[in-house]
Amino acid sequence: MNVHGVAYRSIWPIERRAVGIIDQTRLPYEFRTLELADWRDVVAAIASMQLRGAPLIGVAAAYAIALAMNREPDQRPDNSALDLVCRELLASRPTAVNLRWAVQRMRSLLGALPHGARAASAWREADAIAQQDVEINRAIGSYGSALLAQLYARTGRPVNVLTHCNAGWIATVDYGTALSSVYLAHDAGVPLHVWVDETRPRNQGLLTAWELAGHGVPHTLIADNAGGHLMQHDRVDIVMVGADRVSGAGDVCNKIGTYLKALAARESSVPFYAAVPSPTIDWQLRDALREVPIEERAASELRIVQGLDADGRRTSVELAPPELSVANPAFDVTPARLVTGLITERGIVRPAELATLFPEASANP
Amino acid sequence: MNVHGVAYRSIWPIERRAVGIIDQTRLPYEFRTLELADWRDVVAAIASMQLRGAPLIGVAAAYAIALAMNREPDQRPDNSALDLVCRELLASRPTAVNLRWAVQRMRSLLGALPHGARAASAWREADAIAQQDVEINRAIGSYGSALLAQLYARTGRPVNVLTHCNAGWIATVDYGTALSSVYLAHDAGVPLHVWVDETRPRNQGLLTAWELAGHGVPHTLIADNAGGHLMQHDRVDIVMVGADRVSGAGDVCNKIGTYLKALAARESSVPFYAAVPSPTIDWQLRDALREVPIEERAASELRIVQGLDADGRRTSVELAPPELSVANPAFDVTPARLVTGLITERGIVRPAELATLFPEASANP
Repeated sequence: MNVHGVAYRSIWPIERRAVGIIDQTRLPYEFRTLELADWRDVVAAIASMQLRGAPLIGVAAAYAIALAMNREPDQRPDNSALDLVCRELLASRPTAVNLRWAVQRMRSLLGALPHGARAASAWREADAIAQQDVEINRAIGSYGSALLAQLYARTGRPVNVLTHCNAGWIATVDYGTALSSVYLAHDAGVPLHVWVDETRPRNQGLLTAWELAGHGVPHTLIADNAGGHLMQHDRVDIVMVGADRVSGAGDVCNKIGTYLKALAARESSVPFYAAVPSPTIDWQLRDALREVPIEERAASELRIVQGLDADGRRTSVELAPPELSVANPAFDVTPARLVTGLITERGIVRPAELATLFPEASANP
Repeated sequence: MNVHGVAYRSIWPIERRAVGIIDQTRLPYEFRTLELADWRDVVAAIASMQLRGAPLIGVAAAYAIALAMNREPDQRPDNSALDLVCRELLASRPTAVNLRWAVQRMRSLLGALPHGARAASAWREADAIAQQDVEINRAIGSYGSALLAQLYARTGRPVNVLTHCNAGWIATVDYGTALSSVYLAHDAGVPLHVWVDETRPRNQGLLTAWELAGHGVPHTLIADNAGGHLMQHDRVDIVMVGADRVSGAGDVCNKIGTYLKALAARESSVPFYAAVPSPTIDWQLRDALREVPIEERAASELRIVQGLDADGRRTSVELAPPELSVANPAFDVTPARLVTGLITERGIVRPAELATLFPEASANP
């Protein structure tokens, strides 16, 4: 996507010695790129959410492993260096399964190779994972944008999409998942307006608003509390969200608060769709509500808010004192019964039919 | 309630020439009282939410009228001064019906009196309305605390209450509505823990946390997005909220986001109670979802957040630029079908039975 007229992806290899990323903790206030040359810096960027979004952290993990492999010749000729980076990556964020998916893919490829061949293979594979993400998201957007076009054709008025968190291009390598449909529909001339949930505590809605503004899509920021009221008053035509981990049965683990919007959508007969790239599906899950590890993040995310001061400088204020007890679960699970459809790179299905789209994976989790 | 060991109400008359209030826009960072000697200052304090909470703004309106009546001898000997203050008060905040209730009560009393008698009567009536609020809330607390004690008796473990916004003593003259039950149960030795919704965009959860800390009640601040997840995982035993306007059929208009918690409560079989002082009931309402005027407040409430800077000074940061489109509906309506019970000063009832508790009012709206 373009930023100030320049085409960007949200992660890119730099001469196979580093990766470039956009520092998402500075957005929307400042567009700043970082060059990460050490795999530990990538782990730290994932944990601090300089890099975020389930698809992007999967790709970043692949590049982190490639960075680690650059140093393989200095390491002992066993798998200890490879296993160390894999272990640290898996521990950096527990909920999005894309991280595990990418780590396992890299680990099984590289573990079978001689040490001298690992670095080159790792970079090739990471590039392939990144490119696959772009293609998956473009395919998701083509299906989802057709859905939006149908809604427009039915009503003849701009389609009001409600979205939660940021499932846009910066949460992926490019295009986004939920927002890919919005971008492609907008480009195809479908009139749209997006209600953007603020998404406390990390305010990823501000990232979504920044993306939508950059692409020229009309949008309105709302408090997370407002969506139910808007749906009661027929001001939302469709809810479209991303996903961090989806069970084979179609339960959707996504940013905390998604579940509340799904409940409101069902109550007001508003269709609720999640955009699901196949690496986000965890075919091993049986009971998503019980089994998905829900990350508990730092209290400071609620207590401290970042913005601009009166002089336009990026600064933070403390909303609540350190002694205040805070709970900060970062994700929740929306049961499949609340989900109208899943938008995948192979088409849109009802949750119960997800496995039919991916017979090779679902049969062999 | 006590603040730093001193007993306070949230509003008090000062020699019938002014009213004292706690400036709630400075809380929880600074405890500061204001003396308002002009009725227009009271109107401004209501609009800016220096004074807030449905019961409190009703009482404040009564005192504003008393302040206006102090000047009656200077006015024309008609009702124009009285009507002006009533009109300005009614326009200050549209949703909470307590304001209308108090204004109508004062207007009908004073309009029938000669000008020379109005000021003294107005102060007496405002004092009576304030005292009635305290007694109503104490009664609500006695019923609600018994409910909490029953929950404790059933489970034998601390009762987890989830609350939204601030329905505490500073939202009333004293005790609070939803929190009155919590305070009285705590005082009676019932072990409790309160999940405090942050309540964006105005963060009234911080006021609730400040109140609970002052009273020694264990509590945890959460993002508004988190409550559904907590209920899915059996970490909430009861939801208790206040109300800004309740229909005779038991539909509850309350702070935006209440509806989402009610949906989640029903889904997880968590009882959902609203504390409803009788002046909050609007017996004229037929279709609450269509008829309650939902206040749309300023975009700046979402865009700008107040906190403490690194030096502990109260300051504000801008989360989003002024050009960003923002919608900020301040209330929503929870349909009676989602409400387990209403806690009134005459007891706890199912929504459909509300009129049976108030036959005199419901028959003659």
